[in-house]
Amino acid sequence: MIENDSKSVKNNYIEQILNPKKICVFGANDNLLGTMGSMQLRNIIAGGGFEEIYPIHPRLEYVQGFKAYKSVLDLPVIPDLAFIILPTRVVPTVMEECGQKGIKNLIITSGGFREVGSDGIELSNQIDIIAKQYNMRFIGPNCLGVFNGWYGYPEKENTFLNTFWIYLPHKRGNISIVSQSGTIAAQTAWYTNDLGVNVGKSISVGNERSIDIVDLLEYFKNDPQTEVIGLYIEEVKRGKKFIKLAKEISPKKPIVAIYAGGTNAAARSIMSHTGSISGDDKIYEAIFKESGIISTNSISDFLYYLRTLSQAQTYNFFPKGKRIGIITDSGGPGAMMTKTAELYGLEVPEFSKRLQDEFSDDLPKTGSATNPIDVTFHENFLTMLIKFPKILMKSGEVDSIIVFGIYDFDEVMDVVESSGGKVDEQMKQMKQLMDIGVVNPIKKLMKKYHIPVFYSGPIPYRSPWMQKFISSDVPIFSLWDYPTKCLAMLTKYSEYRQKVSYSK
Amino acid sequence: MIENDSKSVKNNYIEQILNPKKICVFGANDNLLGTMGSMQLRNIIAGGGFEEIYPIHPRLEYVQGFKAYKSVLDLPVIPDLAFIILPTRVVPTVMEECGQKGIKNLIITSGGFREVGSDGIELSNQIDIIAKQYNMRFIGPNCLGVFNGWYGYPEKENTFLNTFWIYLPHKRGNISIVSQSGTIAAQTAWYTNDLGVNVGKSISVGNERSIDIVDLLEYFKNDPQTEVIGLYIEEVKRGKKFIKLAKEISPKKPIVAIYAGGTNAAARSIMSHTGSISGDDKIYEAIFKESGIISTNSISDFLYYLRTLSQAQTYNFFPKGKRIGIITDSGGPGAMMTKTAELYGLEVPEFSKRLQDEFSDDLPKTGSATNPIDVTFHENFLTMLIKFPKILMKSGEVDSIIVFGIYDFDEVMDVVESSGGKVDEQMKQMKQLMDIGVVNPIKKLMKKYHIPVFYSGPIPYRSPWMQKFISSDVPIFSLWDYPTKCLAMLTKYSEYRQKVSYSK
Repeated sequence: MIENDSKSVKNNYIEQILNPKKICVFGANDNLLGTMGSMQLRNIIAGGGFEEIYPIHPRLEYVQGFKAYKSVLDLPVIPDLAFIILPTRVVPTVMEECGQKGIKNLIITSGGFREVGSDGIELSNQIDIIAKQYNMRFIGPNCLGVFNGWYGYPEKENTFLNTFWIYLPHKRGNISIVSQSGTIAAQTAWYTNDLGVNVGKSISVGNERSIDIVDLLEYFKNDPQTEVIGLYIEEVKRGKKFIKLAKEISPKKPIVAIYAGGTNAAARSIMSHTGSISGDDKIYEAIFKESGIISTNSISDFLYYLRTLSQAQTYNFFPKGKRIGIITDSGGPGAMMTKTAELYGLEVPEFSKRLQDEFSDDLPKTGSATNPIDVTFHENFLTMLIKFPKILMKSGEVDSIIVFGIYDFDEVMDVVESSGGKVDEQMKQMKQLMDIGVVNPIKKLMKKYHIPVFYSGPIPYRSPWMQKFISSDVPIFSLWDYPTKCLAMLTKYSEYRQKVSYSK
Repeated sequence: MIENDSKSVKNNYIEQILNPKKICVFGANDNLLGTMGSMQLRNIIAGGGFEEIYPIHPRLEYVQGFKAYKSVLDLPVIPDLAFIILPTRVVPTVMEECGQKGIKNLIITSGGFREVGSDGIELSNQIDIIAKQYNMRFIGPNCLGVFNGWYGYPEKENTFLNTFWIYLPHKRGNISIVSQSGTIAAQTAWYTNDLGVNVGKSISVGNERSIDIVDLLEYFKNDPQTEVIGLYIEEVKRGKKFIKLAKEISPKKPIVAIYAGGTNAAARSIMSHTGSISGDDKIYEAIFKESGIISTNSISDFLYYLRTLSQAQTYNFFPKGKRIGIITDSGGPGAMMTKTAELYGLEVPEFSKRLQDEFSDDLPKTGSATNPIDVTFHENFLTMLIKFPKILMKSGEVDSIIVFGIYDFDEVMDVVESSGGKVDEQMKQMKQLMDIGVVNPIKKLMKKYHIPVFYSGPIPYRSPWMQKFISSDVPIFSLWDYPTKCLAMLTKYSEYRQKVSYSK
């Protein structure tokens, strides 16, 4: 589905920045909490896979266990990446030395450039001139750098490159993020891990003095490891080029974007953050619409949408229509999801008589087979969790499916035992049944029928029962707000994707 | 603030149902997973505090360790609550016997009444007649019963009455829920625990054949343990009375409601759930508006709004205006919160020159003091987390405050150590500092200035650093969508509360 022009990708300077073999770091010492650079170096070390790390430090002989050098000019090799986390005023000097050494790629974390006013603008101009003189490209300044979960792949397992100051890495996957905020690039990692949002690459671009969103879109367009793109935007510098590229990319690799500007105080906030001049919300809405970009103002939406689209690419489930089937053991969530589905423009059609009869054979008298199906209290959870979705998939009466009824039976067993009750073997075996009876079969069924099945339950993601689905990349939702919201987004995107493909 | 008419409360039959001393249970055995009644009995046992539990069973001598009786007529005492979880057809007979025994209060979990059609309606009429004949009141049928976190208070610690089939209980607090869905009453408990939504009482009312939402509103109106009310509604039977009561209650005890009807398929879903005839969304919107009820279609909103209002009652922080101050160490969330605040109708005013100068003394050159304050990278987190909010509270320039910058340093320390680094004493002591330096002082400050301070960070609620805030009932938010959403809700409610009080 995705064009793979691997030769042009391999020659790309962004590919080099994401996969350095020899890296030198300015601004790290042994005081982990006190200096940002120290934390960032620690993260690079924690990523494993590196062989050559060269701290540059005016006084220390060793930094975090690595031999340090007084100047980059003293190094025995030419690093393929320089990483600078120093006070703003010394950045031009250090860059000059990097140029002399023959280093072509840099990441500049240091802030204090155009976002602080006239002094900073002067410094920005200086680093532009130096970069031009030595033919250097850099990410930043005023950024957290890069995360590459594919670092070392396929030779090395579980290695990554992480220059962010938060230690927890994202999990390797088909999502790539470009962000004008370090927090959205990096600190979302706790949630991407919990929710199973598999982010393979994440770039904090800062002030975009040398490499901007458009450069990165160009890179991700041809990157075979990228199938979904997330953007956090405060300003798009090259609007026309951005729209042209996004239009080419979005029908194949969906793009989700947050635009943080557009209101008065937000504009002021952005000016002091990255120095960007943000524009009217309506302009960006129009840009997103024209480019086929899915947009939101919510960080939760952003993460959920990315996950849904990532799974849509993996299972190739892009709904062909608006009809949802809802299977639940609980009337309240069933009614609420039905309502929100309709408010989002989806349909919850009553099933045919034939289909209702088929379900009714397995339902108690108090149950309901119309749509939503309400199984009420049930003993055999496999009926509800796998048999019913399979019947629905084969029926041709729905385009997507939601199943509500995943619980935490570990906890139930704990309470039974701690209050003096007895847990029988059947209960203990349920956990294994979930893998064999639900998770594995539904993966095959989704790949066969290309119909999304979204499981949900009232338990938090941290529950081992949720993590079973997460680790298998089967769609699972805690609570019942997001299944309909994500299906609405996916259905709308699928319509766009289909329309654009047909018109070609 | 709350009228306490404790005599009328004590005499109430709802008070009796929530605080039974002697309870008999129909429909429980030793097969915990196979019968709903068995799980519900287990929950009652797990709640502690009970002395007399009488299982009624036609064959067993003991049920879950308690001596069982063949008929309620054989019991040596008159129970003050009968709890019935039996097949529908035998419910009238058992009710008849309860009446003969002199039992006045019942909970009927059994489904299969009006929600299944004409047979069920006939059975509904039968139980109405029996209840009338013996002057009995009951919750249900087709419900999960009740949770009372105040059961045993103040004599007993940590006891509760829980008839729900999910084991995890809510945490005792000032929120009471009335729900026409068992799931919303019961299975939200995982989230109420994680998020710190302290639900003291929760009633699953089912088909409301005898006791309805209006009865419960009447009870909660005068209940000193209730300061916030949550409703899940599929139908309001006594509309006029409901509006009258809600109007009286809402300026003192805020009410949050979900109405699940209002669309075509939702109406069908509701009919098969509780047998209710739901009405147009616009009618309910008008009812909620007239009654001062805060409404939403989202279960997450519902839980967050309840928590925010509960804390508003505890600290008496009801914002006097729309001006928010935002303190952050991260430009992205700062910009996003500023934007959503403005979209929700709040204001993020630029601080006065004097105030900006005061903040600037503690900010690095790369920071910003306008609003949002961006402290960027900082070593002394107490400045940002407590000194700045205090300055803002005293300034008179804002009505509420958001602070973004709570992280999980436990995990940071883990990663440092596991990658061969050294964790120093300063890092280890940060955890205690959070209690002494932030959580305890902010509680005092919020009580003194009556200005809400909402903390937030990118880490999940399960983190011990989040749970520090939760266990102290200090507002804390994971991610940055809900701080502005909840402040917008609270500000709007406060305006209503103020307006109604003035007009009296």
